Amino acid sequence: MTSQGRARMIGLDWGTTSCRAFLLGDDGEVLAERRQQSGVKALTASAVSAGTPRTEAFERAYEQLCGEWLETLPKLPVVACGMVGSNQGWVETPYRSLPVDLVDNGFVMTTVPARDGSVVHIIPGLIADQGVPDVIRGEETQVLGALGESSWTSDNSNIDRIVLLPGTHSKWVRVAGTTVRAFKTFMTGEFFALLTTESTLSQLASPSGNANWEAFGKGLDVAASASVGGGILGTAFSARTLAMTGGIAADEVEDYLSGLLIGDEVASASTLWREVDVDEVLICGEADLSERYRRALVKFDLPTPRGISDSAATGMWRLAVAAGLVGQLDPSHPTPQASPVSARQQHRSASTTYREPGN
Amino acid sequence: MTSQGRARMIGLDWGTTSCRAFLLGDDGEVLAERRQQSGVKALTASAVSAGTPRTEAFERAYEQLCGEWLETLPKLPVVACGMVGSNQGWVETPYRSLPVDLVDNGFVMTTVPARDGSVVHIIPGLIADQGVPDVIRGEETQVLGALGESSWTSDNSNIDRIVLLPGTHSKWVRVAGTTVRAFKTFMTGEFFALLTTESTLSQLASPSGNANWEAFGKGLDVAASASVGGGILGTAFSARTLAMTGGIAADEVEDYLSGLLIGDEVASASTLWREVDVDEVLICGEADLSERYRRALVKFDLPTPRGISDSAATGMWRLAVAAGLVGQLDPSHPTPQASPVSARQQHRSASTTYREPGN
Repeated sequence: MTSQGRARMIGLDWGTTSCRAFLLGDDGEVLAERRQQSGVKALTASAVSAGTPRTEAFERAYEQLCGEWLETLPKLPVVACGMVGSNQGWVETPYRSLPVDLVDNGFVMTTVPARDGSVVHIIPGLIADQGVPDVIRGEETQVLGALGESSWTSDNSNIDRIVLLPGTHSKWVRVAGTTVRAFKTFMTGEFFALLTTESTLSQLASPSGNANWEAFGKGLDVAASASVGGGILGTAFSARTLAMTGGIAADEVEDYLSGLLIGDEVASASTLWREVDVDEVLICGEADLSERYRRALVKFDLPTPRGISDSAATGMWRLAVAAGLVGQLDPSHPTPQASPVSARQQHRSASTTYREPGN
Repeated sequence: MTSQGRARMIGLDWGTTSCRAFLLGDDGEVLAERRQQSGVKALTASAVSAGTPRTEAFERAYEQLCGEWLETLPKLPVVACGMVGSNQGWVETPYRSLPVDLVDNGFVMTTVPARDGSVVHIIPGLIADQGVPDVIRGEETQVLGALGESSWTSDNSNIDRIVLLPGTHSKWVRVAGTTVRAFKTFMTGEFFALLTTESTLSQLASPSGNANWEAFGKGLDVAASASVGGGILGTAFSARTLAMTGGIAADEVEDYLSGLLIGDEVASASTLWREVDVDEVLICGEADLSERYRRALVKFDLPTPRGISDSAATGMWRLAVAAGLVGQLDPSHPTPQASPVSARQQHRSASTTYREPGN
């Protein structure tokens, strides 16, 4: 039996800038992975410039990524998460409102019938309303993957965790057991990019090599200092004055700004949920960025976080199980799989209470 | 006697993007005003591209602006404030350290002998150290102008004021009498420009016409709401989610962001100096922007501010008096004026304790 012979489903982590396809085996084991730069942004742009429907661009990217797998195993369930379900994606899918138990029975995915006869099931994003709306798409799947198997099955609703997904738009997700109670988006990565490439501060900066932890720590200190105060609008100018007065070198400006920004984010987040007794913090992110957040969390007296790598495939597997698309493996019976038809029927009966564009 | 016959000095408000020249008469009355786009940035760039010394570009701009006046009245004292005294300006001038009585006797300007024989006296900027350095150049002169004549002469050291100069880099200056106790720079205007032109939020925005006070007020509300929290890094994303969910229209996004940013600035500033019992707040700025800050100050329970228009010329007059370059008019005596030679001698004896580039 080849590795593909054991395949149970395909998972697509389809975000703004790239798409990763996973061939998953028993219990969500990753048998194979493929990646393309065909993110939602590039596909939408190519459809606009070609004057063709957006769906065509998504179809083609889907066939390039998964065509070979589906030729061999045409009945594999296909699940996708991320911006592919936004109003700029393949098809727009509704959000689920908080609080949400991620693995609640009967949760509904939006289905897209593809040209090759397969059906793609898109995992819904989440919407929170904490005075103003906040949304995530894709991170809910990573969160579930990050929580790990023990959380999926045992009764652990009393364990409060924060799952932190740093990036262009950092997401802080508060989870009790597998129920998402709240989340919050910080535009920290985008602010960093703007400040270090477009602002007057960027003119004083020269590229840094490896992370300069001293400069980063200095930024954290200033963010933490109540006497300096003022949030990022009031601390950012110090990158200029310190560079001018020799307090930091030109190749330290970027790490200093990184410390100011991440410090500001962590300070705000720790205030936001100060009433919650957090048992654990998990960070899902790329290594250098996770290390920056780890240092900031320690600085602001939050629990020392545990790093989790790449949890999207695991989350998609678990959500596919929760949606009834794959069953927990029982070797004595054939694998139950939702057919394209039943998936479409399921979608028709879904009560779509909230449909909004974007994210 | 023509209006120029009564001229007592020339004042140059020479900033990053423009230069304004004022011909001032008795008691600082503005007799004439000229303006050019020859700000420090453009002049430095033109010198670099022509491969000539920067001073030449400044000489030429100075002659274009003031040549006619100085031909008639070659002995007029010339005073300049702003970025002209930075390391990108005509000549780099030292900062004065806080606390500083702006009209203290014996304060020293840096002199530049011009090709036509006149001498330009550059008003020093100020440097503060509140954990990290902060600097202003030019605003100290506007502050003194804004305080008004009664503050210059009477003993009013117990009157605590905040002079607020909104703009690309907003400056909050805390003054007791004419003594600057502290100041703080907020990069609010620059963040606004970055977010509305370069960020993902700008893609959802269409230009607005007049100020939309409802959208601006909504931004203030979110900035003020502790339950939303998170500073601008944590509130900015709401411009996207509200635009997506119909909470604000596309042509309201910019005013909403303006409210978020100015609200964040005013909230931070009010925390920064919460121990000070402020008697009065003065705003020096362009009308629309001042009105935005006025609304934000009211929202954050700061004193309702008084608006002051264009105070640079008045401030330069008063500082020229303090430096002994012009005397308070006494009709029975000839006007005492510092000659270019004595001004240069004064500069030579100056103790330059702090020289740093920029701002």
